[in-house]
Amino acid sequence: MLTMQDALARLTAYWTDQGCLIVQPMNTEVGAGTLNPATFLRVLGPEPWRVVYVEPSVRPDDSRYGENPNRLQTHTQLQVILKPDPGNPQELYLGSLAALGIDVAAHDVRFVEDNWASPALGAWGLGWEVWLDGLEITQFTYFQQAGGLNLDPVSVEITYGIERIIMALQDKNHFKDIEYGAGISYGEVFGQTEYEMSRYYLDDADVAANRQLLEIYAAEAQRLIDAGLPVPAHTYVLKCSQAFNVLDARGAVSTADRAAEFGRMRRLAGEVAKLWVARRDELDHPLGRVAPVPPATAVAAPASREGARLLVFEIGTEELPPSECRAAKEAVEREISTGLAGTRLTHGDVRVFATPRRVVAVVADVAAREDDHVRTVRGPKLAQAYAADGSPTKALEGFLRGQGAALEELTEAEFNGVRHVVVNRPEAGGAAAEVLAPVLAKVVSGLRAAKNMRWRDPQLSFSRPVRWLTALWGDDVVPVAVGALAAGRETRVLRTAATPTIAIASAETFMETLAFNGIVADPEDRRELIVTGAQDEVYPDGRIDVRGEAALIDQITYLVEAPTPLLGTFDESYLSLPDAVLTTVMRKHQRYLPVRSADGTLLPMFVTVANGPVDVELVRTGNEAVLRARYEDAAFFYRADRETPLPEMRERLRRLTFTDRLGSMADRAARISSLALDLASALDLSSAVLSRAAALVKFDLGSQLVTEMTSLAGVLARDYALHAGEPRDVAQAIYEAELPRNTGDDLPASLPGALLSLADRLDLVAGLAATVGLPTGSSDPFAVRRAVLGLLAVHRAHPALAGLSLTDALRAAAARQPVPVPDEVLAACADFLAKRLEQMLAEEGFPIDRVRAVLVHAARPSVAGNLLTQLATVTANPDFVAVAEAVQRARRIVPPSTPAGFDTAALTEPAEVALVAAVTTVRDELAKTPEPDLLRFTEAASRLVAPLATFFDEVFVMAEDERVRAARLGLLATVRDLGDGILDWAELRLS
Amino acid sequence: MLTMQDALARLTAYWTDQGCLIVQPMNTEVGAGTLNPATFLRVLGPEPWRVVYVEPSVRPDDSRYGENPNRLQTHTQLQVILKPDPGNPQELYLGSLAALGIDVAAHDVRFVEDNWASPALGAWGLGWEVWLDGLEITQFTYFQQAGGLNLDPVSVEITYGIERIIMALQDKNHFKDIEYGAGISYGEVFGQTEYEMSRYYLDDADVAANRQLLEIYAAEAQRLIDAGLPVPAHTYVLKCSQAFNVLDARGAVSTADRAAEFGRMRRLAGEVAKLWVARRDELDHPLGRVAPVPPATAVAAPASREGARLLVFEIGTEELPPSECRAAKEAVEREISTGLAGTRLTHGDVRVFATPRRVVAVVADVAAREDDHVRTVRGPKLAQAYAADGSPTKALEGFLRGQGAALEELTEAEFNGVRHVVVNRPEAGGAAAEVLAPVLAKVVSGLRAAKNMRWRDPQLSFSRPVRWLTALWGDDVVPVAVGALAAGRETRVLRTAATPTIAIASAETFMETLAFNGIVADPEDRRELIVTGAQDEVYPDGRIDVRGEAALIDQITYLVEAPTPLLGTFDESYLSLPDAVLTTVMRKHQRYLPVRSADGTLLPMFVTVANGPVDVELVRTGNEAVLRARYEDAAFFYRADRETPLPEMRERLRRLTFTDRLGSMADRAARISSLALDLASALDLSSAVLSRAAALVKFDLGSQLVTEMTSLAGVLARDYALHAGEPRDVAQAIYEAELPRNTGDDLPASLPGALLSLADRLDLVAGLAATVGLPTGSSDPFAVRRAVLGLLAVHRAHPALAGLSLTDALRAAAARQPVPVPDEVLAACADFLAKRLEQMLAEEGFPIDRVRAVLVHAARPSVAGNLLTQLATVTANPDFVAVAEAVQRARRIVPPSTPAGFDTAALTEPAEVALVAAVTTVRDELAKTPEPDLLRFTEAASRLVAPLATFFDEVFVMAEDERVRAARLGLLATVRDLGDGILDWAELRLS
Repeated sequence: MLTMQDALARLTAYWTDQGCLIVQPMNTEVGAGTLNPATFLRVLGPEPWRVVYVEPSVRPDDSRYGENPNRLQTHTQLQVILKPDPGNPQELYLGSLAALGIDVAAHDVRFVEDNWASPALGAWGLGWEVWLDGLEITQFTYFQQAGGLNLDPVSVEITYGIERIIMALQDKNHFKDIEYGAGISYGEVFGQTEYEMSRYYLDDADVAANRQLLEIYAAEAQRLIDAGLPVPAHTYVLKCSQAFNVLDARGAVSTADRAAEFGRMRRLAGEVAKLWVARRDELDHPLGRVAPVPPATAVAAPASREGARLLVFEIGTEELPPSECRAAKEAVEREISTGLAGTRLTHGDVRVFATPRRVVAVVADVAAREDDHVRTVRGPKLAQAYAADGSPTKALEGFLRGQGAALEELTEAEFNGVRHVVVNRPEAGGAAAEVLAPVLAKVVSGLRAAKNMRWRDPQLSFSRPVRWLTALWGDDVVPVAVGALAAGRETRVLRTAATPTIAIASAETFMETLAFNGIVADPEDRRELIVTGAQDEVYPDGRIDVRGEAALIDQITYLVEAPTPLLGTFDESYLSLPDAVLTTVMRKHQRYLPVRSADGTLLPMFVTVANGPVDVELVRTGNEAVLRARYEDAAFFYRADRETPLPEMRERLRRLTFTDRLGSMADRAARISSLALDLASALDLSSAVLSRAAALVKFDLGSQLVTEMTSLAGVLARDYALHAGEPRDVAQAIYEAELPRNTGDDLPASLPGALLSLADRLDLVAGLAATVGLPTGSSDPFAVRRAVLGLLAVHRAHPALAGLSLTDALRAAAARQPVPVPDEVLAACADFLAKRLEQMLAEEGFPIDRVRAVLVHAARPSVAGNLLTQLATVTANPDFVAVAEAVQRARRIVPPSTPAGFDTAALTEPAEVALVAAVTTVRDELAKTPEPDLLRFTEAASRLVAPLATFFDEVFVMAEDERVRAARLGLLATVRDLGDGILDWAELRLS
Repeated sequence: MLTMQDALARLTAYWTDQGCLIVQPMNTEVGAGTLNPATFLRVLGPEPWRVVYVEPSVRPDDSRYGENPNRLQTHTQLQVILKPDPGNPQELYLGSLAALGIDVAAHDVRFVEDNWASPALGAWGLGWEVWLDGLEITQFTYFQQAGGLNLDPVSVEITYGIERIIMALQDKNHFKDIEYGAGISYGEVFGQTEYEMSRYYLDDADVAANRQLLEIYAAEAQRLIDAGLPVPAHTYVLKCSQAFNVLDARGAVSTADRAAEFGRMRRLAGEVAKLWVARRDELDHPLGRVAPVPPATAVAAPASREGARLLVFEIGTEELPPSECRAAKEAVEREISTGLAGTRLTHGDVRVFATPRRVVAVVADVAAREDDHVRTVRGPKLAQAYAADGSPTKALEGFLRGQGAALEELTEAEFNGVRHVVVNRPEAGGAAAEVLAPVLAKVVSGLRAAKNMRWRDPQLSFSRPVRWLTALWGDDVVPVAVGALAAGRETRVLRTAATPTIAIASAETFMETLAFNGIVADPEDRRELIVTGAQDEVYPDGRIDVRGEAALIDQITYLVEAPTPLLGTFDESYLSLPDAVLTTVMRKHQRYLPVRSADGTLLPMFVTVANGPVDVELVRTGNEAVLRARYEDAAFFYRADRETPLPEMRERLRRLTFTDRLGSMADRAARISSLALDLASALDLSSAVLSRAAALVKFDLGSQLVTEMTSLAGVLARDYALHAGEPRDVAQAIYEAELPRNTGDDLPASLPGALLSLADRLDLVAGLAATVGLPTGSSDPFAVRRAVLGLLAVHRAHPALAGLSLTDALRAAAARQPVPVPDEVLAACADFLAKRLEQMLAEEGFPIDRVRAVLVHAARPSVAGNLLTQLATVTANPDFVAVAEAVQRARRIVPPSTPAGFDTAALTEPAEVALVAAVTTVRDELAKTPEPDLLRFTEAASRLVAPLATFFDEVFVMAEDERVRAARLGLLATVRDLGDGILDWAELRLS
């Protein structure tokens, strides 16, 4: 059996064979290998650096007294830095797994999107988690920034989680059972330390002492920065970080502290980084400078050809995130089409396919050349071309000179109705290869993602590195060159294939070559294969909820290029965990499809989709072990949580930050609770259930399992509350407080639940609008948009809440915030809310004019909704239409400033008198029902129909007599205002 | 070329092949691998443990900004712990060198005595420095205590100094030039860190901050001890140690602090150790318990033999320290002789030989058996054996029963003149093997050294492990068994021999087998070989000062068992360093013999004595490189020192502790200075030279080179003072202040030098007598005895100092101490001084009676010395003898309480009157010369000779008349006291 220490030795040896230096772990506590100066400092600046080292990584917060099978206060990282990006780091990495004896072709090794950032270090990068049969074994990152500085060249950071890898390789279920050395277990060597250091971090560390340490370390770091000594300064930044982590594990970090400390560390780390760079400059870069990768030279242009051929253009990448892959597919399709349109090459359909590792454009029947054509060059206006004597003017002479043309070559042509002299230049069409090359190059250089990175390429920037280009027109390579890449006829198939690189004879054989090598390039085909394959696997006992899991299936489609669905099982005993726990682990953490019986019961199995022709048994076993560990972990937390009193969990919210300026989660929960009770009181909806639920709301954020799986907030609250003996209604209300979690999710069914849900969202919107601002465009990190949609949906779902004005409620929520919320912000919130309602109602199919007409009730969406429903009826009622038209007519006639009200004495004509009587009656009638109700309005207003018709027929409003005119306008203004507060009548389109 | 990182990997791999675990370096700064819990905690308790790890070891005090070629603030240790002692750790270690590609047979690998102790850890052990061609590459220690606890089982600690080894293997002269990884140097990787961390430790670390850290760490350690958590407590002890080291490097540790901090760390480390042991007990020793090594069983006794044969008994050890080896040789000789005397085996000469690895006893003609003999068992006295009726008494019956004898067997014999009944029992003599076995076993079990250790043996304890026994009587193995060792016929020759273990056919061939294998067992032979070999090597240009280097040659004799002298050279440029520097490095550090030309000039060469048939070229080159590095180091310091102003060096004495209670070296220098000036003033010997020298005295203890080579104190002071432009007299006086450095050394020639020398020694004696106590027996760690001898010698050498009373001067020195020096202590000092003077003078050949007679002047040894010289003359003068006899006679007659003085009126007889007149005259005469002078005394007192003779002849002292008797006794008392203050007349033997 490969022991842990042997594994470390093998990996170290492998990487030294790749030219890495070995350095020692940092001799002060660090949370990760990244903090070691061999990473943090060395990735800065222009010097090359390759290093491998072990880093025992201390995470005080992960202390579990050695009881949790998968979690340790100190775990072992093996860290590799390759600077610059060698161009093939993934392949090198796979080699390292092989060095550990892992058959990477038999196993399912996957690169799953993961973006890394350390706010405290001012560092970030893009990359992946590497999965081995579903187990995250490595963090793989292209470093983009450190200490707030852009990194050039970019470094590749590979961080192995050694205990995990070894547990998998040795088939162990508890870290203590790892065979550390021959015949000696990890537990035997480190068990006592794990227990005692956990005791220190969780229970015994002196808070005052560690606070003092933190201050001293920070001051020493600053002093050393001032002295121009980045190396010792850095060690003190690390000591700060450890002291902070100890305080955090002891629950001694307030939200204000946390923000301040992160800010301080980021600042110190940034200064250290700057200083290091400056010192290395001064020292003239003892390790030299990385030579930039030279731009590629395109292959030679092919010989002249005839006839139309297929064009294939493949952009080969490292594993793209699913969303980026989809976006890239669309972008390439668009750009190729546009690009081709800018040429005079005839062509057929443009189709684009995409897998995580490639975007392939296939264009049918691309002509061998553009047609020849004549280019007309416009000269001076004819009138200005020749002098009176017919001789060329100076202008014409200039033109001829400029064109190198003779007088005899001139002809004439008309432009916008004006005749000009012109020269006609016949031009030959370009050959396909030369015309296509710049078009295709531009497609590559134009690739952009939501978040872009640099790698070794001198020019390109994209979601992940572009590693190769294949460009074939028929049998010819299109001479594309962009950045460091020159297109060729080689494509790459699965990395684990016997021949991972294959030369393609002609564009026409490209797609079949991919297919022959197992790569399903078309996402539609892949989805189909995944769905049918999964269904086959579970047949006949199980079902895959293809509609319900559509989003997951879409994601899986873009995680593999050669889908191999396979069925795994897990122990039935785990079915005692809540369904949501089981499925969340499957979907979110593992991208497994849950399997249910015909009646919807969860079955102890799952479908995972491997990539390529793996050893199915091996991969199944691996994935099952991962799921078992995940479930064991969850079960561990679940048991621990169920043994924890609810108030204790709620108390833990003090240690969770909501946002820097909006306080802890405990603060937020208190605000939600108080707001919900006040709203209820105002609506006369107070209840014991609500009071109890409000006292507990969000307590499960303090549970271990929700800390691990935040999406289970609410679900577990209900479970734990019931287990703790809370009444079912209370448990349900606490659960419902979290609803709806996304569009289309369930809404709170109970009023206590609804009130808590509203209070939650009101608090979020008010607080964030005042601090972060309302969302704009696609940036909405706190999901304020979703919260607003939730507000609207919940309000509309509960007629009992119709009386509640969300804008008033927002004001109440604002008053509870720890920051001032100015009136402008509240006004902006109301506006934002109205816009979302308009959009929501429009998407529900209501005519936009009616939607806009009811938006005066945006603060009470259920009212708006009801009115819309009534509108569907009343707009068919001639009385309503007549009144509405009258109202609109009155609006047109009467100046807006004219108040309702009239001098009865001036209105003496019978039509006037009749209308006055009717108006008065209707107004009195309507005054009885202050809530807007179109049915009642129509019923009451129907009495106006006839008098209004007579009035408009017989009375000339704009009478000469000023007094009469004023009274008539006042009467009409009264009519106009009869529907005030019900609809925005102006918006309503009648007829 | 083997890079440094490859070397670490190879060593690690080698030791894991020996069953060692690999752990990571400590993730807090440590000064040595020993501090890592994988050593400090794991060597405690009964659990087995084998581990190897790299430890970057931080020594803030060694910071040199990366400028010194051999010294780094962080150097790399590779640490190995073997617990229990595997029985062959040296052989395993040599295997590790072979794994590095070192040909241990070609190189000179030596184990040179080195005892390790860490007062701060309450830890110590015995072992060696391992030398590779003269270079110390490894510390090899048998751990005996840690945290103040005895270790059982004992662990073997092997600590490789990696940079040194690599510099040797790669032939580099500066650590920065080490090839760390392929194509990348140590300086390139670590140069900046070395500079910046040096800056931190020497210049920039904030003293107040580090003091605070020290306190916080210590408090946290104590809290964790109280909480019963040894592991985190230990990390805080380590942090204490680092904070202390930082303060120390910053020169911020006072002597009081140092003592207090060491005490605190020792106490904390001790509590951690106890707690760890207790916790491991509670956990029931997860790694099991080391099985004790079973006692050995002796070989079967040989068949019966006839005739006398040679006995050889070899005790094989690991390398003994030279002094212990000599002592063991003597002890074995004594014990074997005594043991044999306790048997009835006849035998010839007992001869014992010794090398570092063996003590061999050779006994000629040991008889095959003891003679048979008759043992007489004494019974009751004859008188009590039989009753009156001749029947046996109860007493006799009891005796017979006890002996199992019958009445008929009784005979009689006389004991001390009394007749007893007896039984005679014939007894057969024992065979040699059975008689010798217990005798030889007892020799081994009785071996003891000044400092003893345990190893894996269940019973034995000695200076170093005993690893094998060879015991042969003729062809037979003597069946000796002791501890885990059973004697056999195998001996071990050089470890690097092709066959390191050889079976010996018979005792008679033993010594020749050793000789044949190159081992020179007889120290006399070895010494001869070394001397003649060295002389051959240097002939004809050079000379070895065989007499001058006798002590070194004696030491070398016991450092090798197969001496191979070889000549090395060094660059002539180093001859610009002071001779003392060059020879001190050679002798003390390297055990090399210096080589001089016929006129005594030092030549740029040396002789080293390798062990065994090494590759001479290789070993020479290695040793030359070591010496070059040493000289380079010395030259580096020398240059740096010469650039340092003297006051700055003197200032550094503040950072050097003299003793915990007696303050810093600066305090001591100040006391010496003040005392010397006061003494001079009292003697009217003040001078500008003395004042200046006193202001600088001992300044060179603050120089880098004297810090490295303390024995050069004074020598370098003179050198640096001259270089700094001080007058020659001043420089000389500062130098002479250190004289004499040992018995037979030069004495100060100048009075300023002599005064400083006296003040130095007076301060030492007064302070230490009051704190540590005066030396007793062999224990004299501060060399107080040598200081006192120096006092005496200097005083005697300078007539100008004759007036100085050393006891008065001691009192003056005492008054300057920071501790009270009670009168009893001063009295004890005076007594101690007198005893040393007595011994010194006796050893100079003066008759003991005269020595004792002059000891009244012990406080002024030069006076005592002068009187002794005068005594040689005056004792031949009859007048002196007569007066002396009279004085002695007066002392006998006159009661001691009788005062001198007499009633002249009562002395009327002519003899009385004459004596009174003579006495009065002599007394007046003597009063004129207060300084004791026997010549003048004799001259003056000669007038008494006749009157005294008459007086004794004619006057009866004890007259009836009381008044007369009193007057006569008073007159004699006056005679008695005439010589008072000159001699202790009672001690003088006349005739």
